[in-house]
Order: sequence, then structure tokens, then C-alpha cells
Amino acid sequence: MAKVVTFGELMLRIQPADYYRFVQVDSMTTTFGGGEANVSVSLANYGNESYFVTKLPTHEIGQAAVNSLRKYGVHTEYIVRGGPRVGIYYNEKGASQRGSKCIYDRAGSSIQLAKPEEFNWKEILKDAKWFHITGITPALGPNMVTACIEACKTAREMGITTSCDLNYRGKLWTKDEARAAMTEICKYVDVCISNEDDANDVFGIKSEGTDTTKGELNNDGYVSVARQLKEKFGFKKVAITLRSSINANRNDWQALLYVDDKDYAFSKKYEMWIVDRVGGGDSFGGGLIHSQLKGMSTQDSINWAVAASCLKHSIIGDYNMVSEDEVNKLAGGDGSGRIQR
Amino acid sequence: MAKVVTFGELMLRIQPADYYRFVQVDSMTTTFGGGEANVSVSLANYGNESYFVTKLPTHEIGQAAVNSLRKYGVHTEYIVRGGPRVGIYYNEKGASQRGSKCIYDRAGSSIQLAKPEEFNWKEILKDAKWFHITGITPALGPNMVTACIEACKTAREMGITTSCDLNYRGKLWTKDEARAAMTEICKYVDVCISNEDDANDVFGIKSEGTDTTKGELNNDGYVSVARQLKEKFGFKKVAITLRSSINANRNDWQALLYVDDKDYAFSKKYEMWIVDRVGGGDSFGGGLIHSQLKGMSTQDSINWAVAASCLKHSIIGDYNMVSEDEVNKLAGGDGSGRIQR
Amino acid sequence: MAKVVTFGELMLRIQPADYYRFVQVDSMTTTFGGGEANVSVSLANYGNESYFVTKLPTHEIGQAAVNSLRKYGVHTEYIVRGGPRVGIYYNEKGASQRGSKCIYDRAGSSIQLAKPEEFNWKEILKDAKWFHITGITPALGPNMVTACIEACKTAREMGITTSCDLNYRGKLWTKDEARAAMTEICKYVDVCISNEDDANDVFGIKSEGTDTTKGELNNDGYVSVARQLKEKFGFKKVAITLRSSINANRNDWQALLYVDDKDYAFSKKYEMWIVDRVGGGDSFGGGLIHSQLKGMSTQDSINWAVAASCLKHSIIGDYNMVSEDEVNKLAGGDGSGRIQR
Amino acid sequence: MAKVVTFGELMLRIQPADYYRFVQVDSMTTTFGGGEANVSVSLANYGNESYFVTKLPTHEIGQAAVNSLRKYGVHTEYIVRGGPRVGIYYNEKGASQRGSKCIYDRAGSSIQLAKPEEFNWKEILKDAKWFHITGITPALGPNMVTACIEACKTAREMGITTSCDLNYRGKLWTKDEARAAMTEICKYVDVCISNEDDANDVFGIKSEGTDTTKGELNNDGYVSVARQLKEKFGFKKVAITLRSSINANRNDWQALLYVDDKDYAFSKKYEMWIVDRVGGGDSFGGGLIHSQLKGMSTQDSINWAVAASCLKHSIIGDYNMVSEDEVNKLAGGDGSGRIQR
Amino acid sequence: MAKVVTFGELMLRIQPADYYRFVQVDSMTTTFGGGEANVSVSLANYGNESYFVTKLPTHEIGQAAVNSLRKYGVHTEYIVRGGPRVGIYYNEKGASQRGSKCIYDRAGSSIQLAKPEEFNWKEILKDAKWFHITGITPALGPNMVTACIEACKTAREMGITTSCDLNYRGKLWTKDEARAAMTEICKYVDVCISNEDDANDVFGIKSEGTDTTKGELNNDGYVSVARQLKEKFGFKKVAITLRSSINANRNDWQALLYVDDKDYAFSKKYEMWIVDRVGGGDSFGGGLIHSQLKGMSTQDSINWAVAASCLKHSIIGDYNMVSEDEVNKLAGGDGSGRIQR
Amino acid sequence: MAKVVTFGELMLRIQPADYYRFVQVDSMTTTFGGGEANVSVSLANYGNESYFVTKLPTHEIGQAAVNSLRKYGVHTEYIVRGGPRVGIYYNEKGASQRGSKCIYDRAGSSIQLAKPEEFNWKEILKDAKWFHITGITPALGPNMVTACIEACKTAREMGITTSCDLNYRGKLWTKDEARAAMTEICKYVDVCISNEDDANDVFGIKSEGTDTTKGELNNDGYVSVARQLKEKFGFKKVAITLRSSINANRNDWQALLYVDDKDYAFSKKYEMWIVDRVGGGDSFGGGLIHSQLKGMSTQDSINWAVAASCLKHSIIGDYNMVSEDEVNKLAGGDGSGRIQR
Repeated sequence: MAKVVTFGELMLRIQPADYYRFVQVDSMTTTFGGGEANVSVSLANYGNESYFVTKLPTHEIGQAAVNSLRKYGVHTEYIVRGGPRVGIYYNEKGASQRGSKCIYDRAGSSIQLAKPEEFNWKEILKDAKWFHITGITPALGPNMVTACIEACKTAREMGITTSCDLNYRGKLWTKDEARAAMTEICKYVDVCISNEDDANDVFGIKSEGTDTTKGELNNDGYVSVARQLKEKFGFKKVAITLRSSINANRNDWQALLYVDDKDYAFSKKYEMWIVDRVGGGDSFGGGLIHSQLKGMSTQDSINWAVAASCLKHSIIGDYNMVSEDEVNKLAGGDGSGRIQR
Repeated sequence: MAKVVTFGELMLRIQPADYYRFVQVDSMTTTFGGGEANVSVSLANYGNESYFVTKLPTHEIGQAAVNSLRKYGVHTEYIVRGGPRVGIYYNEKGASQRGSKCIYDRAGSSIQLAKPEEFNWKEILKDAKWFHITGITPALGPNMVTACIEACKTAREMGITTSCDLNYRGKLWTKDEARAAMTEICKYVDVCISNEDDANDVFGIKSEGTDTTKGELNNDGYVSVARQLKEKFGFKKVAITLRSSINANRNDWQALLYVDDKDYAFSKKYEMWIVDRVGGGDSFGGGLIHSQLKGMSTQDSINWAVAASCLKHSIIGDYNMVSEDEVNKLAGGDGSGRIQR
Repeated sequence: MAKVVTFGELMLRIQPADYYRFVQVDSMTTTFGGGEANVSVSLANYGNESYFVTKLPTHEIGQAAVNSLRKYGVHTEYIVRGGPRVGIYYNEKGASQRGSKCIYDRAGSSIQLAKPEEFNWKEILKDAKWFHITGITPALGPNMVTACIEACKTAREMGITTSCDLNYRGKLWTKDEARAAMTEICKYVDVCISNEDDANDVFGIKSEGTDTTKGELNNDGYVSVARQLKEKFGFKKVAITLRSSINANRNDWQALLYVDDKDYAFSKKYEMWIVDRVGGGDSFGGGLIHSQLKGMSTQDSINWAVAASCLKHSIIGDYNMVSEDEVNKLAGGDGSGRIQR
Repeated sequence: MAKVVTFGELMLRIQPADYYRFVQVDSMTTTFGGGEANVSVSLANYGNESYFVTKLPTHEIGQAAVNSLRKYGVHTEYIVRGGPRVGIYYNEKGASQRGSKCIYDRAGSSIQLAKPEEFNWKEILKDAKWFHITGITPALGPNMVTACIEACKTAREMGITTSCDLNYRGKLWTKDEARAAMTEICKYVDVCISNEDDANDVFGIKSEGTDTTKGELNNDGYVSVARQLKEKFGFKKVAITLRSSINANRNDWQALLYVDDKDYAFSKKYEMWIVDRVGGGDSFGGGLIHSQLKGMSTQDSINWAVAASCLKHSIIGDYNMVSEDEVNKLAGGDGSGRIQR
Repeated sequence: MAKVVTFGELMLRIQPADYYRFVQVDSMTTTFGGGEANVSVSLANYGNESYFVTKLPTHEIGQAAVNSLRKYGVHTEYIVRGGPRVGIYYNEKGASQRGSKCIYDRAGSSIQLAKPEEFNWKEILKDAKWFHITGITPALGPNMVTACIEACKTAREMGITTSCDLNYRGKLWTKDEARAAMTEICKYVDVCISNEDDANDVFGIKSEGTDTTKGELNNDGYVSVARQLKEKFGFKKVAITLRSSINANRNDWQALLYVDDKDYAFSKKYEMWIVDRVGGGDSFGGGLIHSQLKGMSTQDSINWAVAASCLKHSIIGDYNMVSEDEVNKLAGGDGSGRIQR
Repeated sequence: MAKVVTFGELMLRIQPADYYRFVQVDSMTTTFGGGEANVSVSLANYGNESYFVTKLPTHEIGQAAVNSLRKYGVHTEYIVRGGPRVGIYYNEKGASQRGSKCIYDRAGSSIQLAKPEEFNWKEILKDAKWFHITGITPALGPNMVTACIEACKTAREMGITTSCDLNYRGKLWTKDEARAAMTEICKYVDVCISNEDDANDVFGIKSEGTDTTKGELNNDGYVSVARQLKEKFGFKKVAITLRSSINANRNDWQALLYVDDKDYAFSKKYEMWIVDRVGGGDSFGGGLIHSQLKGMSTQDSINWAVAASCLKHSIIGDYNMVSEDEVNKLAGGDGSGRIQR
């Protein structure tokens, strides 16, 4: 029952049902999600005292966002209320050769306009064991870069483990902006989560021979990427996810957790039939943090994180609605999908 | 088959089904609407060559907005494409003593950020018979005030009848701002549409003895309001709607059309069971413009406009999906709601 | 547990949800109904051995029509299977001053094309107590006129009570056609069900001072209409429904049962908030037949029939899904609509 | 921000959409509710620290019940987890003359089978200002009678105000059983909430001249009922609700708060168009407790409670999803249901 | 058109739409199903006179259960009406590595509480050709064990073929309880249906080298299992289904029908993309009984049964909604899934 | 921005949601589609001035059909209005080994009954670059054969490229009828689109060694089929689609474009997970026409047409809702289905 804090944006996710396209529908699902909040919900589902920090309007749409977290047991008392709007992303689910489509409408959201001083990190992080952000939060603007640096710095000072999922979003900032900000933030980060694209986009670190659009992944180079990341920023651990996209319905999924050249492990690889791919990476983060908090070995930890994340791909919505038992079952080897009765 | 042009914002309307509140739902209807576009659709439904002018993003949500107009026969070739976002309003339907709720999220929309020079009014208004705006368009910002003035001025120069629905929105601008802008715009307006609140909020013109929140309407003062409006701005005609709100499900609905002290008429009054109140005023505007284009007498015209608008209150969505025949039938006296078979 | 037989068309009813108009929706409810089948379901719900006779295609849409009757306990073994299509009616629900709209697409249906000899009335009517048709069945075409005459004639020969709801449908045949056919059929009918419009449209029998489109009903003249109908055709009993249409949501509902000038009764009058008006008249027929089969007095019978029919207006779909107990309760005086728990 | 505790059963509520009957549908809404939990949600919505106490299974349906409370800010840490099942009630919404129907399937639920000692009232009630139950909780069985007595007794010892809504449910126990149990429980109750039926059913206390099934309510006798209740049990205050059921869509709603013969007040009376009548009484309880906690005068308190409850009738589901501001607005006199924009 | 009787429980099946989890939804499908009723519907769909025997409450939920059978032509006149409740199972559909989840809430159902003497087997089985039960019926309680023994014994005395699907449900009874009861029942059973797990769980009969959770099935051992079952109980025929669960979306499906060592046959094996796995085994039973009633050879019979069951996995709900023609087509070799037009 | 004209029937498509069967549902999607209209929408989506020609009733269902085209930018001014009904097809989606089912109810539709002289081809085809029909249009009846011949002849006289998709529908006419009509029409056709079945069914031209129900396609024979078609009718180009149906969820998809023995090309082959197979062939036609209008080489053109069509199989409904950019992307090699953000 560790206290864990994450910080970021919670958005309204507007999506057509089924495989309908945006222009075909007169009604959409309106749920909530966001890279960091998704991690928060995962951690609450595994039984942690999970706190999410953001800023949301006082009106009913803001309240509905708060409620979506409370419903699943996330603590929301550190969420600042005010500002003009809830950020939005429109999501359209792909199928077969047609990829999913994401339209961001998050400019001018309450969290984007929030001032760093609105968050009292000393109080927020009191008694916490872990603090997590992703590269999306600083991408929202300079004030959020400042807020992230303050938060991570404070966490480090308080002896709290910090993690960051690089999560580069080209629609939010340039690679140069990302590199500048993330370089500063990563000084205070203990555990780095990335995929090969992110490491390359943000820091120019890459492994050769891989073209992700072709679904070809060269596993051999990942250890090198992890080592470079560690060497550059002094991370204690680096986790890298390996997604192989056969098509929009079929992905392979695996990951690497690297501590040092003697202690690293690749997880089991899963062939997944995808129900909802959004939040897949975040669920890996949630699984990794939980398995680390539980003190699992490198091999067990990466297996657990990937099993958690594999299950997410079978769940509708941003949040990974699976329990610790369910992840244990899959990590323990039963992926037959048999009915339980 | 007159060409009619309207100018304004087309928004995404996000609304819970039935009488659900915002915080209760995980899915909402996502249709489109806006004061001026609603008039445009009405006019297309009555058989006019109806053109709507605005600016909308190139992405799929912008395209869906365009499609919502094309579907009903509105011409969209003068819509400028670009800019960042489609404005949004969240709407929650009231019932009984609980009023409907409207949350605007329209800041930073493509039309709000559009420059006046993006609209070539000479070309847009070529061969048009009527041009219509409402007070919402200039409320979007100074550039839209400029665009409205240019448009109305051009229309007047081209001999096109202009109309404006005052439509004051306190959430968009102050009364002072509204007064300044509308005073300038109204110089070029022939037909003014208002309700008592708008006339008072925008120009400080009011009739005594009326408290709209109590559902008490003093019909006698309306002629005075219309006369004052005409005298102040030189309008050729002034239409004033009289809504008596018993509760969220039951409203009475009537209107006045004033040409001068010898030529004015109150319409028949309808007791309405409300299906969707949003767009009610706009449907009056659409009905009035059509009946004026048809050359109806003052009495017939106001009866037709109110009948059109009465029917709108039985229609889901912003757009008034009724035909000329259906309005004729009600204006002709058959409001029994009997099944036709 | 009397055996009762009805004969007519069962159609697919395609209707937008809620108060949506046809042109607004991409999905509709697809249920089944029709004037005579509706009576059949009512009678099954009240515990009778109810048989419906028609012709339906062998394909799945025809099967779904059969299933819709079986589900509610109607016997379907006399339904002839074959022919090209299931008749359709598109129905759009009105509200307030906007009336419901009904578009028939029933030409060429299996029953319309059926030959009179496909129905073995001697076998079908064996042991039956009551046979019922409406004026819609013969309106389908000359072969159906023949079939109706044969059926009624056979029933009379077998000593079975026959009833007919005049149900004039101007979209199916002319008044002259209706008069010719119905005059022949009515020779073999014991109980005639009508409303003032039908008596007038089909036989030119009317009571003065009533304009149904204005919601004004002159009750005094109804006894005269009933008397004229009886005198003209030798009916044993005549029932006349009195609908007063305030608007599409509010109707008043009452009826008269006339045996002779000494034995007639008006029912209680109900103010109804309408959920679904279609099938309202049919539910009256079902209630009347059941109360007659139960041997109720003229006053009790008409009260029961109107109570049954009043409840129908609160039920979605063509079929009147209420039990004998529920009708007893309302006929017994409890119309408070209080929750039962 | 007072701590308030309620105790009772939280059930799964299974209901057809719209006005569909049970036998017509293949899908139903599955939400949660129950007399006491409804009060808990109201109090959380008004800003109190609201705690709900019950027992629910550990499986996902039990968890979904817990989540339905957490979502709206109700504290759930005192909910005991275990036992076999979540109680269910099937609810069918009435219309016009057809009443709503409620089928209970709650036998053998986890709370019904819970032992009194599973609830540590000293700890649960620590720092609480108010404790609330209804007559439904003891109706679940003898162990729940014991638990209620223990809870109320403990609350009184701790100086906490206690309230009880008599809420007689004839499907759960006999009047004799109810009288025996409630007589014991009421010894420890400060504020009694009732309607005339409950006072009569449970304690044989009644006012003459009232027949609730006919919608006739004799207001004059209510003060007498309240006085008798107070005299018999020593309540500090007695609140009586006065529902006049015109039909399933139209009810009038008013209430009385009685302290003594010098200090009592009838509220304003509302004509309500009903969206969902279930939970109407509970929302009155929630409003009354909140207005009492706020220290309002007798007149203001009863006006506030009735306004809160009036709004509930416009809300779908058991829970009264309205804010303190919204109740203030209606209690302050604005019931026009006008749109706010 | 053989008369076939099955006996068991018909439950309400409550399930979230799509791949939603229980805790995510506010609405679920509410259909009906159960191991024995599913067989009954299959047999009706193939044109048999199929009778289902159970006990169900008189209220509307009980009636809806009856209607769900009548709709598809199952005879329901032997269903006893009364008792407190309809058993429920909550079902959540799995995807990819996440298995489906089933929560039983069937304790205290009307059939569970029914007394053996409520079923008059002599009358029920009159003129029947086949009687079928599954191991779920006796698992409901000792009275149901008695009822099953009486039914099977009576059937045997009347010369009716009896079949039993072992269907072990660990959530309903222990293996020891199952063994004791099933040993007694199987004395009167002609055709036994099992899968390897059931044979092992109930009777301790197993074939080595198979681990069903790993999707590894050793076909060679199945003949041995069938032989052992036959030897132990004197069955005339034994059918064993072989499911290989790749994941929740992909299963392989095959079966064995064993008469003796000279007359046995394995069916064709199908790779299935699963729409709804629940009822898969029951559809095999329905197909087997029908093909046996048709007098097919061992090879044809098992091919037909597996084809029927393969199609079921593409059908939503418990009931196998396919016709004899459709099974013939697949059993005849066309599994291309091409559109027919 | 070439003007392209297509001519045919636009039908109402009625389909159960998800994988439900016809007999299971009470509500269906009601959208519009038809072989030629589908091509028209494709061409509008790629930016062409696309005109669809047909006849549709004046009532609301006819209007909704028109609106479904206008919404996506298809020009509808040449659609003749009148006649009795909109043709219907009921479609049920297959899964795994169960194929989709299509029930036509199109007899007596407005276009079927239209007279050839209702279409003024000189005016309709003015300034057009391409005219397209399919074999379905003449299959509607002799008057449509005449209309098609007139249209194609006029197009050829005006120098407009004509294309025809053979599209044999055995439920509409016999092979002999088809051969007679198509032989006449093909005299005026430049580009012929076929699959092996069509070429064989209509003209008796086939390649050996292929059994489409078994999913075995012998690519080698297709060039021979194309050559034979060209030789027989003098087509300039022949396109042949090659579908391999593994099951209802999995098809392989490829095509051949043949100009002469020196200039022909097979496209890339796609493994498709099918969302909606209906309209798959039409989307190929739309893609082929667009790529030809763009002047692409034989290899590029067939690649583009197949990529367009591959994407269609991931789209719900008849219309292929993809943009030129999206087809370019897939034709350019990215079929990974990765999310774009």
C-alpha cells in the first residue's frame, strides 16, 4: 500500500464506437485518459495509494474528469481546480491496415495554463514512495517544464524514487524543445521508460537496423540503447518496450529492463489481438512501477510489467482495468484466455 | 429559391442522452450547431439556396462539421478551411424545475482566430437576396466585429437585405463591449430580431413589468421596445420573441413583428411541450427570413415564423428539421399533433 | 381460455428512437405490428388462446415476424409461409404540435399477394369463439376482400362471433372502394368498432359539430352514429372510440358501446400522456373482445376496453403489453401511476 | 464539511431504457442505489464528508457497487467486503396511468447475511455529526435489527444526531414485524422522516380524509400525525412528505417539518414532471440532513429539503446528482427551468 | 419432428457490451441461457418439437425467461411457475490473453428450491424420443439430484433415449458430491457427453499428456477416456469434445464419438474466431442429439455436431441460432464465410 | 477535380449491430448503399466532382437517401424524385465459418420502375470525364437495360470514358438474361471490372483450377480471363479482383489490371481482417477510376485501387470513407496500422 504520485494532464477522450470513422457518427464515447493518469489508475488497481496531480476546471466536465479517477480509487485531493477547459483528444480506432487516428485539442487547457507555484510538492509528495511523470507533461509548455523540474527535484531531495516515460509527442513540441527540457528533467530521474523511437526522437540515441513502420524490430540493439541512456543521464534503471506492429489488430509486445550489463532481462513476448491500443505504453509504466515497489527481480519485474501491459491491450479505454491477481496469472504463464467458471 | 448567406460559428455540440447529467455518462451525442448555422439549415429546408460562411479546421472534426451542413443541402463552398480547432459547447438538457446547462469551450476556435480578410464578401454575397448574422459572431472577438461590419456594409452596398439577431451571450463579452460593437453593426442592418432581455442587455432598452425568470411576460411593453429599437437604429422591421418559461418542459411561445405603429402584429401563442429548446430562437429567425422572402404580410409572416419555431421545440438538435409544408400546416391552424396515415 | 382468431397483415415497423426525425438517424428500431396482430397479442396477454393468420416469407425477416408473436404466446401455426416480402411501415413519433408520420411501404407483401384459397377457414376457425378483422385487411387488394368475406361468412356459419374495426386507411384505397368492400363484409359482422372519422369515411355516417383536428368532440352525436351503423348493417353491437387530440403528447380518450337505445354506455374519460399512440385503437379492440368474452355488462365492458387502451398509450410498440390484472386495476379506479413496491 | 454516516443496503438496479416493459428488452441499465446510499450520495454532493456503511461481495459486481459511490465522493472505507451476492431490484418506469413496477431480488445478499459484530460503530462514528438509517435496513432481517439498534444507540451515546426514514416496505416484512423493530430503534432517533402511509403502516398513526391512491391529500391532518409521532417516541423533529400523485408523469410535492406546535412549517409546493421517481424520498432525507447541519430555520430547512427533492425527480437514477448551488437556486425561487448560457 | 425434452435451469445472463469489463459499464445485455435450455433451443431450431422443463417465478422476469424460449419455438407448457427468483450469471467476455469471467448468482432460484414432485415425468415424457440433462442440474442441490434420477429412470422405463453432458461446475459442488450424484444418474443414461476435464473432475478418468491451459491436446488419449467411461457406466455412446484454446479469440474445436473400438470417429477440426464462447459445449450436445435422431452414421453424426457447434462460436448469446441448412452447409465442407447474394 | 457520373440504385441497408443475427434484434442500423453509389462516394472522397444518378421517392426515406450522398459531397441534382419506394437490402454480418447473409427487398423500387426517358444523358454527362455503371443496374429490369445502353452510348459519343463492373447478381436475373443485356452494354464500355465468378457467370469465360469457395485462387489463369474479355468486347482495359476467402473474418485481396499482353500488372496482396466486406468490390472500382483519371501507370494504378479497396474492408458501411492521402500511404507501403499522434 505504497503512496505513489503522478503528475500530468487528464483529457476528455472522444471516440466513435466500434470501428466507425469520425465523419460517420453522431455520438461518441466520452471518457477520460492521459499518459500519467493511466499510470495512476493502474497503481490504484494494484492496491497502492495512488495520487494524481493536475489542474481541472470547476465546471461539470472538470468534475467528471475527477470522478473518473475517484471511481477507481485514485486520490484526487491534490488536483487543483480552476482554469478554462479540459483538454481533449479525439481518437478513432483503426483496423487491419488502417491505423488509429488521434486529433489533439488540448491547447489552452487548465493544466497547460497552470502556474508552477500552484503545486506544493513538499506537501503532495509527503510520505510518497514513488513519483512518476512522462514527457507529455513538460511538452505542454514552459511552465510545465518548470513544474516537472521542481517536482522531480523535490522528490529526489525527499528520497523518493522518480520515473519518467519519455513519451515524445511530435504534435506538441519539436525534438529540440524536447531534448532541452528532458535533459534537464532527467537529471532527477531514477527510472527511465522509453521505446526506441522516443530515445531517438528526444536524445538521438538509436539502435540500427530497425524500422518500426515495417514491424521489424532488432532486439539486439536495445541493450545498447538502454546502456547509452543510462550512461548519459545516470538512470538507475532503463526499461525499453518493443512493439512489433503487424497491423492495427495484431501486435507483438515485449520489453527489456536494464540495470547494468550484468543485470538485464527481456520479457516473454506476447502475440496480442488488440481491443484498444491507447494506453498500452502507460500500462507498462504502471506495471513496472508496481513490480519495482514489490521488490521483484529484474526478470520478474519486466515479465510482470509486460503481462500487465499485454492485458491492457484487451481493455477498452485509457485505463488498464486489471487486478494484481489477473496480472499474476498471466505473468505466471496462463494466457489461454479460457473462461473461468 | 433565393440565395441567402449567413455568417457565424459552427460548433460541436456534446450532450448526454435523455435527461442524464454530464457527470453520469460515458458517451454523448456529438452533433453540430450554432446560432447562424441553424438559420442556414432552416432556410435550406424551406428550399432556398442557403450558404453558410465560417472557418473550420481541415481535420476530420472540421470535415464532420461541414458534412453536417451539406447533408441538409446547405452550400459550404465559402467556408474557409484551416485553423486549430472546432469550438465546442457542452449541453445538458433540463427537466421540470431543473434548467438546461450550457458549458462553452469555444476559445481559440478557427473562426475566432480568423482574419477579416479571409472572407471575400463581394464574391460571397454575389446574387444574394439576404444576409444574416447574430450578436454571437462579433462576440467572438475584435476581428469578428470587423468582419461583421465589413459583411453588413458590403451587403447594404449591394442592395441585399440584412438581418441581425441580437443574441447577447454574457459568457462571451460584457454588455459594454456588446453595445459598442452592435451599435456599429446595426447601422447596416435592416431587420432586427431580439427578445426583451437582449434589447435590454445590449442597448438598455426595456419594457417594464416583466421578469422573465418568473415566466411573467408583459406583452403590452413589447411594441414600445420595438419602436425604441427602430428609432435608435433605423431598422426597417423589428421582431421580438416572447418566451414564457413555465418550466424546462413547458414554455409558451409568441412573437411580435413591428414595421411601424400602423403595421405590426402579434402571432398566435403556442403552449409547447419541449423536446429540445436549443435553437428555438434561431428557428424563429429562419422562419422570419423565409416568410419575408416570400413576401408575406406582417401578420402572416410573424405567424409563419412562430409556427416554424414552435415546431423546432419538438425537434432534437440545433437544426430545425421541418419542411415548408409542415410549417404551413401549423401556421394554417392544425396543431393537434394527430398521426398522418 | 377462449380460442380467438384474427386475420390481417403483420408489418415490420421501422422507427427512429426518441423524437428523432427520419432524416436524422442511422439506426432505427425494427419491431413488428399491424392492426389485427396487435389485437391478437392483446388477447394472448389476457390469457386467451389467440391465433393470428397471415402470410409471411420463409426468410429470416419473415421468421422474425413470426417470432415476435410466438414470444408473447400467440399461436402461429396457421400462418402461411411464402411470398416475396414483409410489408413495412416507417413511423416517426410526433411531439407537441408536430404530428407523428407514417410512411407505408407494404405494396407487394406476401399477404397482399396471397390467394384466398391459401387459407382453410373451416380448419382455422374450428372451436373458435371469436373472429376479428379490420378494414385494413381488405384494403390490401381484391383477393383480400374475397378472403375476408369467406372468413367472416364461414365464421358466421360456424356460430362464431365476428368483429370488425372499420379502420379506414386513405393511403391504401379510396372511400368508394372501401364502401363497396366493407358493405359486403359487414353483412357477416356482429360487433362493429369505429371512430367518427371511419364511419364517415367508409359509410358517410356522421355526427355534426365535431372537428377532430381541433380536438373538439361532440359526445352527443355518437349515439346517433352508432344507431345508424347498427340500423344499416344489423350489427349486434357498435363500439365507437372518442379521441380528443390536444397535441401529440396529450390526448383524451373515451368510448361508447351501443347495443340498443336502452342499453348503451360511455366509458370513463382518461387524460393521457402519450408514450406511443400507434396501436391505441387496436388495443381498444382487444380489450373489447376480451371483456365481451368474459360476459361483462355493457358499462363494465366499455370501461374495461378503454382502460386497456388507455394503458396501451403508455407502452412502446404496436403491441399492448399489459396483463388482465393491470387492466382490472385501472378499470377499478386506480390511475395514480404510483410505484408498486 | 461535516462527517455524516449512513447504513443500509446498496443494490444493483436493473431497468429497461425509456418506457420499455421488462418483457420487451434484451438490455437494461445496471446502476446502483438504495434508500440509505442515496442519502449518502446527496450529502457528498453538498460537500459533506459522507460515509456509507454496508457489506458487499469481493467480486467485480460488489466492486462496481463500491465504485458507484466513490465516483461521487462518498467514502467507502467502512464497507465490509465479503458474502455471496449484491441485492438486486428490477425497476420498470411507469407512464401516465401505468405505475412503475419494482421487483425485489435481494434475499441472501451480503448485507442481509452480515453479522452485527462486523460493524465497529465506535470507530465508524468517530467525529461524525449525523447518523442516518431507514426502515429498510432492519427489514432485511433480525441481525440487521440488532445492528441498527447498536448503531443508533452508539451514536446517541457519542452525542451524534440520528435520523430515520420510516420507509415501510411491505414486500420485506409485515407491519407487525416493522412495528416491533422500529419501536425499539426509534428510541434512539432524533429526527424522524415519514410520509402518511409509513406512519400508518408502521405505527398505526394516521390523519383522516386522505386517500393517497386518489391523489387527494389533506394537509391539515399532517401536523397531527407529526405531533403523535413526536409524542410517542420523543423525536426532536418530525418531517413528513406530502406526495400527490396525479399520474406517473405528474406529481405534486410538498413537506412539513414539525418541531413543536409553535415551530413548524410547510414548504412550498412543486408541480413536478417526473423523469425518475425512485429515490425521491431519499433525496428529501439528504436535503433535510444537510439543511439541518447548516443550521437553517425550520421554514428554510423544509424549503431546502423539498427543493432538493423536487430536483431529484428530474434526475435519472437513484442518486440525486445536484449541487448545493442548484438547490439554493430553486429554494430561492427560480423554478423556470430556463437554459443558462 | 421428434419430441425432445430437456431439464435444467434457465438463467438471466447479464453481460457488458463488447469487451467492456463489469466495473466499466452502466448498462448490460440481459438475455437468458443455461446449459440445458441452450440444447432445447438448438433442437427447436433444427425443427424438432422441443420441450424445456424448469421452474420459474410468476413475475415479469420469470415471464421474460419463458418468452425467450417461446420466441424460438421451444414448448414451455411443462415449465412450473412459482418460487422466488430467476438465477443469474454475470458474464464478461475475454479477449486475447484475458479470459472471460463468469460470476454465478444462482443460489435460491426457483428451480433450485423446487421439489422433485412438482415434475410429472410420465406426462412430460409422453411420446418423447429423447431426454437430455447436464451435470449442472443435479449440482443445484439434493432435490435436483432426486429429480434428475427420477426423470432419467422414468425415461428409460418408457424406452426414451437419455443423454447427459457431464458439465462439471466447481463453483456449484465439490468433485466428491458430483461423483456420488453422477454415478447414480449415469446408470440411466445412454449417451454421455464430456470433455477431458469433466471426465477427470467427476470420475477421475483421464488421458495423460494433456494440459488444457496450455492449449496442448493429446488426441490419442481420448479414445481411452471414452472407452473407460463406457465400461464404467454402460453408456451406449460417448462423445468427447476437444477444445484447444490458443487465446480468448482463437480456439480449435474438434470432437470424438465413440460407440465401441470398431465404431468411433473424430470429426473435422475447425480453427475458430470466437464471437461468443458461452454455450459452445451445449450447441455440440444439441447437434449430437439431432444428428442421432436423424440416424446419421458415427462419422456423419460427429461431423454434424461439431459443425453445429463451430457455428455457435460465431453467434452472440447462449442459444445457437443456426438452422439445419446452415449446419448442413458447413458439415458439407463450405467454411469460407463468403457472403451469399 | 474531374466530373464523374455513376448510375444505379441507392438502397436502404438494414443490418443488425455487431454479429447479431436477424432474428435476435429489435433495432438495426439503417444506412444507405449500392454498388454504383459506393463508387460515387469514393470518387467524391478523393476530391472529384462526383455525380450520382438514380430515382428516389419524394418522401423522407427517399430524402434521407439523398442526404447520405450530399453529406459526403456527392452531387445529387440529377437524381429524379418520385416513385413508390426505396429498395432495401437486409444484411447480416458473418463471422468465422458463418458467412454474411443478404436478403434483397428491392422489387418495385422507384429506380426499378423509372422510365429511360426520365434521364437526360446529354445534360447529365456534359463536361464529364468518366461514366460508370455496374451489372446490377440493368439487372433491375428491361427499362434499366435500355437506360444503361442509352447512357453508355451517349457517353461514348461524347468522348467520355466508360467503365462497367460486371457484378452478377443471381437473385436479380438469370445468367442468360445477364449475358444478353451485358453483351449489348459492353459494346460501349472502355474499362471492364470483373472477378472470375462474374466473367464466368455472365459470359462463360473462366480460368481453370480455381474454386473460390475453397479459398484457392489460381493467379495464373487471370491474365487469360482478362485477355478473353478484351478480345470479346474490345475493352481498352480489364481489371480483375482476386479474393481468397479464408473465413468470414480473414480474406486475402489482390487484383490484376490488364491492358495488353505487354502491359499488365498484379497488385500487392493484402491479408485483411475484415470489418465490413460489403462494398469491397465497389471500392476497388472507385480506386481504379481515380487512379486512371490521375494517369497512373498500370502497376501504380492497380496498386492504388487495391490499397483503396483493402482499406474499405476496415470501414463500416457501404461507402469507402478514406481519403486520397490515406490510400497513398498504404499504396506507398505503410500497412502497419500504427497509431498516428
